[in-house]
Amino acid sequence: MIRITDVTSPANPVLKSLKALAEKKGRRAQGLFLAEGLRVCTEALAAGHVPNTLVFTAEAEQHPLTVALIRATSEARRTSLRVTPDLMQRLTGKDNAAGVAAAYEIPSTDLDRIDRSTAKLWLVAENLKDPGNFGTMLRTCDATGAGGVILLDNSCDPFSVEAVRASMGALFSRQVARATAREFFQWLRQGPAQLVGAALEGRTVDYRQHRYQAPCFLFMGNEQSGLPADHAAQCDALVKLPMRGTADSLNVAVCAGVLLYHALDQLDPHPLGEVAREA
Amino acid sequence: MIRITDVTSPANPVLKSLKALAEKKGRRAQGLFLAEGLRVCTEALAAGHVPNTLVFTAEAEQHPLTVALIRATSEARRTSLRVTPDLMQRLTGKDNAAGVAAAYEIPSTDLDRIDRSTAKLWLVAENLKDPGNFGTMLRTCDATGAGGVILLDNSCDPFSVEAVRASMGALFSRQVARATAREFFQWLRQGPAQLVGAALEGRTVDYRQHRYQAPCFLFMGNEQSGLPADHAAQCDALVKLPMRGTADSLNVAVCAGVLLYHALDQLDPHPLGEVAREA
Repeated sequence: MIRITDVTSPANPVLKSLKALAEKKGRRAQGLFLAEGLRVCTEALAAGHVPNTLVFTAEAEQHPLTVALIRATSEARRTSLRVTPDLMQRLTGKDNAAGVAAAYEIPSTDLDRIDRSTAKLWLVAENLKDPGNFGTMLRTCDATGAGGVILLDNSCDPFSVEAVRASMGALFSRQVARATAREFFQWLRQGPAQLVGAALEGRTVDYRQHRYQAPCFLFMGNEQSGLPADHAAQCDALVKLPMRGTADSLNVAVCAGVLLYHALDQLDPHPLGEVAREA
Repeated sequence: MIRITDVTSPANPVLKSLKALAEKKGRRAQGLFLAEGLRVCTEALAAGHVPNTLVFTAEAEQHPLTVALIRATSEARRTSLRVTPDLMQRLTGKDNAAGVAAAYEIPSTDLDRIDRSTAKLWLVAENLKDPGNFGTMLRTCDATGAGGVILLDNSCDPFSVEAVRASMGALFSRQVARATAREFFQWLRQGPAQLVGAALEGRTVDYRQHRYQAPCFLFMGNEQSGLPADHAAQCDALVKLPMRGTADSLNVAVCAGVLLYHALDQLDPHPLGEVAREA
């Protein structure tokens, strides 16, 4: 039997608790985060993540993938709420809200949960401040088959609405860990690892000249200040992207993307077997 | 003589007109856009752009680069306002506001102003919706020496606060044009051009297999829907990045960054002459 609760009032307590997930405090108290969109929630389900609470509009319910989400949520004896478009807008804070949203359990972000042998490439970020940058980097990890992102020190919350949005479902397929820089360096050297810092200064090599070796950890600095010198000193190599303009700067997620794709090309030069080469 | 006006009230008419630049309507009415930050405004000045109106806090005035901006603004007989930190916060809508902001004239975005011979690489974007993506792409153009971004059809406003922020000064060093797709294709074929579309479907080749030829126009599709089939049909080649994850998607600015750096590598393999290769 499918159980659905119809909600028409913003005062509904379950809806209010979901709304609280927009704030870090609410996420910490409930151990949940909010993801939006039918595609993301469907990918989550495919990866084995059943919503703790599912929310959808009557219009979205017409879609068979929404029905599959409702069924899975119900089978796990969890809550499904059918809400008005207006309430969905309030929940997500978006004018053009998706028809589906769901709360999921926040996974463990312990560094010890990371199994470095599961991927050739990893991202590490020092004091990454912008959750959009984090989400975009995690999304690129998914695209390149990298294992995930290790966030150091005072980085942003990887489960904020903005981070989840930018990650486009990659939170469900990639690993995320949080640690202090000290904890990370200690953990790193307990196993095989090549730590490659992205830097503009110091003893850098052109990123195309470096030989990337798996498991390779690409180390990105803070958006404003880059990699601190003492962190750069821990690296096995420092690589630099050519800077031919006036600003001498690059968005950190773009920089990570260029490095991931270049390293992927070196480590695994022909992953596109299905591509028509004569086109 | 340096002329500075002290402003302590949010009702000041000049300040109010600057605040109106946060909205498209205000930008259109005044023909101005707002940029923030000492670094960006200093780069603008170095590129020959004097503020139409300069705003700064007493604290920021301690910096010699702020003094240089005040001088240049005054010499051009334009307005300099010294405001309280609170007013700066109101103006920029940021808690952690910069100490300097300035309004600049919106340059022409006519396609005919683009001189394709001035750069080997250009970006073209169809219905690009997110101003942060646009700004990030323009910033990467600066980093790679690409000429700029041509925005097609219903793309975002390249002079919105969010776009200017993400571009990190590249609006002052790169070219931006706006056109319909029809106008663009017509213009494109009036001169030498290789149009390379980024696509996930169709007769794509691996992006590493394609031979990029200058002037090369890298054509990016909309964030949600990618390149429309009729636009893809106009391309000289379609290239695809490997997608090894579950989501089969990549942020458009990351995709543009990977393509720009890869094409740059092909067209100009050793731009990093200053780099220590033995490090």
